[in-house]
Amino acid sequence: MSDQEIIVVTGDRTTGPLHLGHLAGSLQNRLRLQGQYRQFLLLADTQALSDHQGDYSRVRQSVIDVALDYLAVGLDPKQSTFLIQSMVPELAELSFYFMNLVSVARLERNPTVKNEIRQKGMERDIAAGFLSYPVSQAADICALKGTLVPVGEDQLPMIEQTNEIVRRFNRMVGSDILRECKAEVGKVARLPGIDGASKMSRALGNHLPLSASPDEIRHAVQRMFTDPQHLRVSDPGRIEGNVVFTFLDAFASDSEQVAEFKEHYQRGGLADSAVKTYLEQVLLELLEPIRLRRAELAKDPDQILSLLMAGSSRAREVAVLTLYQVKKAMGMFYF
Amino acid sequence: MSDQEIIVVTGDRTTGPLHLGHLAGSLQNRLRLQGQYRQFLLLADTQALSDHQGDYSRVRQSVIDVALDYLAVGLDPKQSTFLIQSMVPELAELSFYFMNLVSVARLERNPTVKNEIRQKGMERDIAAGFLSYPVSQAADICALKGTLVPVGEDQLPMIEQTNEIVRRFNRMVGSDILRECKAEVGKVARLPGIDGASKMSRALGNHLPLSASPDEIRHAVQRMFTDPQHLRVSDPGRIEGNVVFTFLDAFASDSEQVAEFKEHYQRGGLADSAVKTYLEQVLLELLEPIRLRRAELAKDPDQILSLLMAGSSRAREVAVLTLYQVKKAMGMFYF
Repeated sequence: MSDQEIIVVTGDRTTGPLHLGHLAGSLQNRLRLQGQYRQFLLLADTQALSDHQGDYSRVRQSVIDVALDYLAVGLDPKQSTFLIQSMVPELAELSFYFMNLVSVARLERNPTVKNEIRQKGMERDIAAGFLSYPVSQAADICALKGTLVPVGEDQLPMIEQTNEIVRRFNRMVGSDILRECKAEVGKVARLPGIDGASKMSRALGNHLPLSASPDEIRHAVQRMFTDPQHLRVSDPGRIEGNVVFTFLDAFASDSEQVAEFKEHYQRGGLADSAVKTYLEQVLLELLEPIRLRRAELAKDPDQILSLLMAGSSRAREVAVLTLYQVKKAMGMFYF
Repeated sequence: MSDQEIIVVTGDRTTGPLHLGHLAGSLQNRLRLQGQYRQFLLLADTQALSDHQGDYSRVRQSVIDVALDYLAVGLDPKQSTFLIQSMVPELAELSFYFMNLVSVARLERNPTVKNEIRQKGMERDIAAGFLSYPVSQAADICALKGTLVPVGEDQLPMIEQTNEIVRRFNRMVGSDILRECKAEVGKVARLPGIDGASKMSRALGNHLPLSASPDEIRHAVQRMFTDPQHLRVSDPGRIEGNVVFTFLDAFASDSEQVAEFKEHYQRGGLADSAVKTYLEQVLLELLEPIRLRRAELAKDPDQILSLLMAGSSRAREVAVLTLYQVKKAMGMFYF
């Protein structure tokens, strides 16, 4: 393995099935990188507990759900390594060492964490494990020797924090044991919710799951936020902030058709319902194969678990090597 | 192993050789418990890094130093299990899970941590690993199934925090997987420094190392804080806050002689120098065998390392079992 090799590390907290926001924000990126580079997909069950304390059965079930979502969209365990965070204890071990390299004040300034704390209404009662989850993410990336991290825009401060830790560690041990990583933001940095809120999120209830049925898709598209000023069909409509057009930009393959719709909508004379019917068709074509593949795969959960076990073992080989290098550099190999 | 079995877990941060404060505050307690109960002695190298970031060679050397101190005072690896924290990665792993069970606000209220932060002048720049070291201590105790923890008085809030985590975890998983522990404070809850400061501490430079030579002992006793009002021998002297008498209470075996000295000193007519000569003799008798044993043992560091390796392996067997129970209870055993 050359030092210059690009390794992709990415993943999801296992707090529930994935949705369209994940597809646009990160899954499409991972599909593009798959086959090009070695890629680790982390099912972060421990991190999930940092804001779902005690919700053990949900986190456990979500490990299977997220793995099913990965497989259904085309992520392939032969080309990408799927792993469960808690099955690679070296990730926790490295996180523990990294905790000494970051100040509490620095963690409290992390914009992603600050936003999430506000959004979740946690304030001063946040768990220590939530405040320090950037440290845990840094450990995940470093332990697996990641150099490229496909993320949504809101996760960019995490990569900055990771590289700060990497530089601090390398400086302290006087050797470039750990490698810095680069973020890769998807084509759609942040997909809005169907209600027009700035981010699609299960917690906000404005999401469309990847496993949505045709009925759910129709329902979601009907509820979708458009231009509240576009009262009569003949009126000119706005496409900025209009979720239907944002979704078309993100998911429609016929960009000429989309451009024509936009022009017509802005000029006036194109009904919301016409654009929505088109989007519904786009989403149906996108999601129906995913839903069917997922339903088929869900029949055999043992096979899912067995591929997660195999992937976790392969990931552990890499993490064990990193921990050996890290502890040796810190003088913590006594023999 | 019955559920009612008493297991002692205790240890020291490896930031330098131990001193008389450790002997009075915890080592004497451990010697008393040794042979009665299963006892784990933890050399906390990772925790040492939480306030000695990057000081890797010092922490590494101190692991040997502290082990030598343990052996020299009579702690016996055949009766007590010596272990190195970083050699039992399950301690870090459990700590990682516990981080989700404690709020940041609760950690910031911990009196021991607050005092240490003030004393070390760390304020808001404290490492996340330092703020959360009570979580790590709780994990050490729980992973080794500790029920009795010999501590100095200043560490009492740590035991409270540990039991809070134990109760929270057991409630969350709905089963008494972890056991609460009890503190055992030594005969001398807190030995003052030779300057009369409330606590003997290497960081404050007011300590007397266990390996002190006769010259160092004499020097320390000469510098020792007595009663600043006791100007003439014939004056009555105060024994409260008088370090020489505090040390005699802690270390002299002839309590009748000490009582006689106290009475005479308070009445007037007993010179500081006379009491100091006596204390010097007491400390010499106490420390000289320790110093000689230590010097002998220090000739063969490989033997020290080998006993630490063996002890860490034995401790790891216990910790692996705990982690299995903990992860199973959290639903994190997927197979």
